[in-house]
Amino acid sequence: MSWTENVRKVVPYVPGEQPKLDKIIKLNTNENPYGPSPKVIEVLKNFDTDVLRKYPDPNASDLVNAIADYHNVTSDRVFVGVGSDDVLSMAFLTYFNSDLPVLFPDITYSFYDVWANLYRIPFETKKLRDDLTIDASDYDMPCGGIIIPNPNAPTGVAENVDFFENIIKKHPECVVIIDEAYVDFGAQTCLPLTDKYDNILVVRTYSKSRSMAGSRIGYAIGSPRLIKYLLDCKFSFNSYTMDSITIASGVASIKDEEYFADKVAKVIATRERVKPQLRELGFDFADSKSNFIFATHKTVDANIIFEKLKASNIFVRHFKNPSRIDNYLRISIGTEGEMDELIKVLKEIL
Amino acid sequence: MSWTENVRKVVPYVPGEQPKLDKIIKLNTNENPYGPSPKVIEVLKNFDTDVLRKYPDPNASDLVNAIADYHNVTSDRVFVGVGSDDVLSMAFLTYFNSDLPVLFPDITYSFYDVWANLYRIPFETKKLRDDLTIDASDYDMPCGGIIIPNPNAPTGVAENVDFFENIIKKHPECVVIIDEAYVDFGAQTCLPLTDKYDNILVVRTYSKSRSMAGSRIGYAIGSPRLIKYLLDCKFSFNSYTMDSITIASGVASIKDEEYFADKVAKVIATRERVKPQLRELGFDFADSKSNFIFATHKTVDANIIFEKLKASNIFVRHFKNPSRIDNYLRISIGTEGEMDELIKVLKEIL
Repeated sequence: MSWTENVRKVVPYVPGEQPKLDKIIKLNTNENPYGPSPKVIEVLKNFDTDVLRKYPDPNASDLVNAIADYHNVTSDRVFVGVGSDDVLSMAFLTYFNSDLPVLFPDITYSFYDVWANLYRIPFETKKLRDDLTIDASDYDMPCGGIIIPNPNAPTGVAENVDFFENIIKKHPECVVIIDEAYVDFGAQTCLPLTDKYDNILVVRTYSKSRSMAGSRIGYAIGSPRLIKYLLDCKFSFNSYTMDSITIASGVASIKDEEYFADKVAKVIATRERVKPQLRELGFDFADSKSNFIFATHKTVDANIIFEKLKASNIFVRHFKNPSRIDNYLRISIGTEGEMDELIKVLKEIL
Repeated sequence: MSWTENVRKVVPYVPGEQPKLDKIIKLNTNENPYGPSPKVIEVLKNFDTDVLRKYPDPNASDLVNAIADYHNVTSDRVFVGVGSDDVLSMAFLTYFNSDLPVLFPDITYSFYDVWANLYRIPFETKKLRDDLTIDASDYDMPCGGIIIPNPNAPTGVAENVDFFENIIKKHPECVVIIDEAYVDFGAQTCLPLTDKYDNILVVRTYSKSRSMAGSRIGYAIGSPRLIKYLLDCKFSFNSYTMDSITIASGVASIKDEEYFADKVAKVIATRERVKPQLRELGFDFADSKSNFIFATHKTVDANIIFEKLKASNIFVRHFKNPSRIDNYLRISIGTEGEMDELIKVLKEIL
């Protein structure tokens, strides 16, 4: 027998292209066009590297406390991870441990079914309506858990807090996760529900609104009991996950509210300015509350537009699966100048 | 039914104390007493934080290439992770997928059984001899995999390459992992075996010899095929794990061979100097090839020494489990001054 027979063989997920060319306009991975807070630069410039010889604080207490302060909750209600992917993956492992299926939309963040398969969690996807909104009644069944992003990705469509509260009320038997990766760009947050229900977890990331995708910081807020289970699970197999520099950078970023609010407002303003321009060019899309627009063109095939943009060094995202969305493009909101260039090139293409 | 019934409940691992006092001598987590290479400081000072708004390179190519260069192997033979815990955990998940038990010593790194339990991998531990060496014949049975640290931890005892080659020859049916976390402090490396056998993985860390525990960098070297399986598994559930600053810091560190060699030599010199002093004080220990000494005292109980040292603000590690080693202390090698202070206080205690 060969060793290869006993190896776990999986099909890896392929992330959005990270082209290494210099002069490109990169609107394909929902990164923020503006850099992180200048306070982060200060942290790096003044970082005492001797600290690196020691293991980082396994609890990342400085960051946990800063996030708790920012959201006005106690520290025992905050969990931090190496990007929200780490937080979400750990949440799947911890909370979704039932024989009943976990429920999420058919069009949503592409890692949910990956983690469910990895951890052998049964799941069922619920079809979005044709207008890409979620039908709450689909979630009206006994289940092993629910996870929904708000706004949803890659659709950009947001639901309000009442919508989620109605779902949570019906599910005392399981944990409900709201993935708020994009919430800062205009949707309502479900954070107030975490004061009221002990089984709802709200997950956030530094990768979008805080311009720190390169730092890998994600966090979750829930009841102390919910967070305790998550911490136990995390500590059961890796004590030291977040490095010391990242902890310090994350603290600096969340304390700089002014910079944050300014940059988020700029992205929103650009998005709102671009919406009518895209409509004028023949694009159709649901109203986006995120830092991207998920659009289909009335007459021209998405793949053709995708390839032609790429030929002009403009990268957007085209999902070939599921086939329901293969005629859509997900366009991240860049700087004003990048969006002007996009509109200019689209005018030439269409 | 309450949601708590469906939650995974685990007993978390408790890492070595990270006391927050200022004036302590910390010899309990095998950290390097010297800081990282000054090249790492330069990286931080000059880091273009605008890079942080983008996702890091999911392949960490710069770091992979630098490590490949350093060890004179091709890049397709290198895997990097967020600390060697991340690398090892991923290796367990990927390679140990058989119904036969995975084998490792009864006294060894305390996370092996944790990961095995987490991933539901059957395992069997093999008792070290009374002198804390490994009996190779114990591993002479069909199995689902083998993992052994060299030098072993927390014993510090090293075996030579022939010892491991004899084991590997007998196990074409499974993957053999050599955890070389401490190898730079004087043991023989099994890296040459990775050129010869496609089923051996050698795992390394930046946390000890490279003084960068706070950065979380680990890596593995094996055959291209072995590494490919590991990468597929990693990418199947998290694309972006290592942050951009860590990637750059890791490159700077491994390129500074002079600094590295100098600091490792200092730790080894201090260890060799301290050995006879500890023996003189009545300690017994196997010869250590690592950056710690695993010692038992001929007449005084380990727990008493542990508590008395702690009262003098000197922290060493005392494992209460398994009971075979509950009369041992693991003492990390600190600076010359720290070890002088340790010896001085031990003289007072004993």
